[in-house]
Amino acid sequence: MASTEIDALSQALARLPGLGPRSARRAVLHLLKKREGALIPLLRALESVNERLATCSVCGNVDTRDPCSICSDPRRDDRSIAVVEDVADLWALERSRLFPGRFHVLGGRLSALDGVRPEDLTIDRLVTRISQGGVDEVVLAMNATLEGQTTAHYIADRLENFPIRLTQLAHGLPVGGELDYLDDGTLAQALRARRPVS
Amino acid sequence: MASTEIDALSQALARLPGLGPRSARRAVLHLLKKREGALIPLLRALESVNERLATCSVCGNVDTRDPCSICSDPRRDDRSIAVVEDVADLWALERSRLFPGRFHVLGGRLSALDGVRPEDLTIDRLVTRISQGGVDEVVLAMNATLEGQTTAHYIADRLENFPIRLTQLAHGLPVGGELDYLDDGTLAQALRARRPVS
Repeated sequence: MASTEIDALSQALARLPGLGPRSARRAVLHLLKKREGALIPLLRALESVNERLATCSVCGNVDTRDPCSICSDPRRDDRSIAVVEDVADLWALERSRLFPGRFHVLGGRLSALDGVRPEDLTIDRLVTRISQGGVDEVVLAMNATLEGQTTAHYIADRLENFPIRLTQLAHGLPVGGELDYLDDGTLAQALRARRPVS
Repeated sequence: MASTEIDALSQALARLPGLGPRSARRAVLHLLKKREGALIPLLRALESVNERLATCSVCGNVDTRDPCSICSDPRRDDRSIAVVEDVADLWALERSRLFPGRFHVLGGRLSALDGVRPEDLTIDRLVTRISQGGVDEVVLAMNATLEGQTTAHYIADRLENFPIRLTQLAHGLPVGGELDYLDDGTLAQALRARRPVS
C-alpha cells in the first residue's frame, strides 16, 4: 500500500474491535489528511493515557489515577458497593448515572469451561473490603448469563455472614420490549418477579 | 465515564470514520486492557507516522518519505502516469497490483457546487510533469461520477497537444453484476462500449 510505517499504523488500528482492514485503511487516510485535527489529538490522548494508565488498587477499575476517580470522589456513597464482572460493566452503570456508590470489578466471571476459579477473580479482596465495615449494601450486578449468575451465587455465599443487604439487578422486560418477541427465559423471570401495581 | 484523559482518547477515536461513540468506547477498553499488545503498538505507529508524514512533492501521495515510495521505486514504469482524484484512489489501484506506472494525485475533483476550480487541484503540476517528456500514456482514473468525469474531460483538454496516449478506466458491468439489478447508466455505458467476442 504505502510505506511500512503507514502499514504498521493500519494494522494497529485494524486490531481494534469494530475496525476491519478496510475501515482501518479509511481511518489511516483520515489521520494522514487531518494531521492537526485528528492525528495529533489521537496521538496526545494515547500518550497521556499510556503514561498514567493504572488499575485502581481498591476497586479494580482502569483509570489514569490510583485510587480511581470513582474511589476518590468524596461525593459518592461509601455504604453501597456494586460488584461487576468487568470494567465495561462499570462504565455502563456509570453512564446510567443512577448508582451513587462505589464499585468492585471482579475481572471476569466464574467459568468451569474457561477454567476461571474464584481465586482468579478479586473475590477475596471484595470480602476484605466488606469485612473492614462501613458497607450496608452490596449490589451483585453480574450479567444475566449462566456464568454471571453462578458468580453472583458464589459471592452471595461468601458474604452470607456479613451484616449487609445483598441485592441484585432486576431481571425482566427490557424497556420497549414486546412480549411476543421476548425469549422465554426473560418472560419467565418477569412473571416470577411480578409486582403489585402501585 | 472515567478520567478526562480516557474521555479524550475515546473522543479522538470516535472522530475516526467508521467508529461511533459506542465502538470508540469498546476500542478504548480494549486498549486499556491490552496495553502491551494494542495500546503501545498503536502509539508507536502513530508517533512514527506523525514524525515522518510528508506529501510527495512529485505526485501528491501521502507517505513517510518524499518523493514517496512509489515515485522513488526504480522498478516502476516512468512512461505511464495514472491521474487519480485522491490518495484513497491511488491506494485502491495499488491494491489491484495491476498498474506498473507512476501516479498523480489531483487532491479532489472539479466541482461548481463546492467551488473547486482547476487552480485548486494539482492540474498545473501534472501539465508540467508531462511537458518534461518521457511519458507515453496518461490514464485518467477518475471516479465514474459526474464531477469525476468533468474533471477527466478538463484534463483531457489541457493535455490535448502533448504526444501522449490518453486513456480512461473502462465503464461497464462490475464483476458479478446482474443486468436486472444494474442502474440504467451503467447498462447504457456497457452497451455503448460493447466489444467483439474474442
